[in-house]
Amino acid sequence: MNKIITISRQYGSGGREIGQKIAEHYGIPFYDNELITRAAKESGFAEETFARAEEKATNSLLYSLAMGINVYGNQDFGFGGLSLDDRIFLAQSDVIRKVAEEGPCVIVGRCADYVLKERDDVCNLFIHAAMSFRIDRAVKVYGVDEKSAADTVIKNDKRRANYYNYHVGEKWNNLNNYDIVVRSDFQGIDRAVAAICAYIGD
Amino acid sequence: MNKIITISRQYGSGGREIGQKIAEHYGIPFYDNELITRAAKESGFAEETFARAEEKATNSLLYSLAMGINVYGNQDFGFGGLSLDDRIFLAQSDVIRKVAEEGPCVIVGRCADYVLKERDDVCNLFIHAAMSFRIDRAVKVYGVDEKSAADTVIKNDKRRANYYNYHVGEKWNNLNNYDIVVRSDFQGIDRAVAAICAYIGD
Repeated sequence: MNKIITISRQYGSGGREIGQKIAEHYGIPFYDNELITRAAKESGFAEETFARAEEKATNSLLYSLAMGINVYGNQDFGFGGLSLDDRIFLAQSDVIRKVAEEGPCVIVGRCADYVLKERDDVCNLFIHAAMSFRIDRAVKVYGVDEKSAADTVIKNDKRRANYYNYHVGEKWNNLNNYDIVVRSDFQGIDRAVAAICAYIGD
Repeated sequence: MNKIITISRQYGSGGREIGQKIAEHYGIPFYDNELITRAAKESGFAEETFARAEEKATNSLLYSLAMGINVYGNQDFGFGGLSLDDRIFLAQSDVIRKVAEEGPCVIVGRCADYVLKERDDVCNLFIHAAMSFRIDRAVKVYGVDEKSAADTVIKNDKRRANYYNYHVGEKWNNLNNYDIVVRSDFQGIDRAVAAICAYIGD
C-alpha cells in the first residue's frame, strides 16, 4: 500500500477511530493532534492558537469579515496581507505536505484532501453517520453532557463544513470530493474499516 | 446477506456493471430495464412511455410547469390530479416496493433509495468517477460519438440530478443520502465491488 489517506468526518461519526484502525492495519503513521503539535513547533506559533483555529470558523462570510483585521508584519511567513488564521492554515498545510512526502500515512481533518490535491497517490475518505448514533457517541466517547449533546454535534458539524467551505471553496458534503464515503453506524465501524481497506488494497 | 441494495450512479461511472457484479456475488436478482418492463406490463402503460420518463425531467421548476398539463380521468390510478410522469413514477415505485418485498436484490436508478426509505434493510450506494473516465466509457461501452461524449455525460448527469431532486427533494450529490459512495475509476471497478461487498457482508 503506497497511499496517503485523508479523512474528513462528521462529529461523532467515529472517523478518528476508523483512521486509527486503518493506520494500524497498514502499519503507517496517524496524524491528528500530533500534526497540530508538529506544525506549532515548526512555525513557532503557540499550540493552543492552532487548536483554536478550526473551531473559530463560523461561516465563510462572517469569518472573512472577522479575519479582515489582519496581522501584518510577521515577515517569517512572507504573507503580510493574510489573517492570522490563514497563516495558521498555511503552516498546517506545509506540515501536511511534509508528512505526505515522508510516505504513506493517515491524516484526519484540516482539509488535507485539498492541501494534497496535486498528488495522485492520495485516497480521500469521508465518514458520516445518523444523528442519533453521533449524539450517543458524543456522550459516551467524548463525555459531552447529554442535554447539550445534539447542539454540540450540530455546531461542530457546522464549523467543520464552514472551515472546509472557506478554505476549499467546495461543499463539505458533496460526494464528488471523496474517493470513498462510508456511513459508519449502518454496518458498524469495523465493517467500515474493512470496506475502506478492501478499496485501498494491500 | 439479507439486504435490498439500491444504486444511484453518474452516467458512465460503471454503476450498472458494479450492480450486476454485486448481484452475481450474492446470487440475487438485478433490476434495471427489467424493472421498467415489469412495471409497464403490470400498470398497462406502454413500455416506451416508461423509458422516456426519466430522460424527460429537465429541472424541477420547468418540469413541474410542463407537467402542469395534467392528464385527468384515469381512474385506475385513483390520482386524478397527477401528471402522467408522476403517475409513471408511482407505478414504478409500486414495482420497486413489490420486488423488495420478494427479498434481497439490486435495484439501479429510479430513486429506489427514496421509494424504500421506510425499510431498514436497504443499503444505498452511489457510484461516481472522474469526467475523463466517464467520457471514455461513454465512447467505448455505450458507443457514444467521441465528439459529443462530454456533452452526453453532462446532460445525462443533469437529468438524473434533476429527476432525483424533483422526486426526492434532496440534492443527488449529497453524501448524507447514501450508506456507501465509491469512486469507480480511482481503484477500478472490481475493487469498488470488493469494498461494497466488504461493507455489506455475507
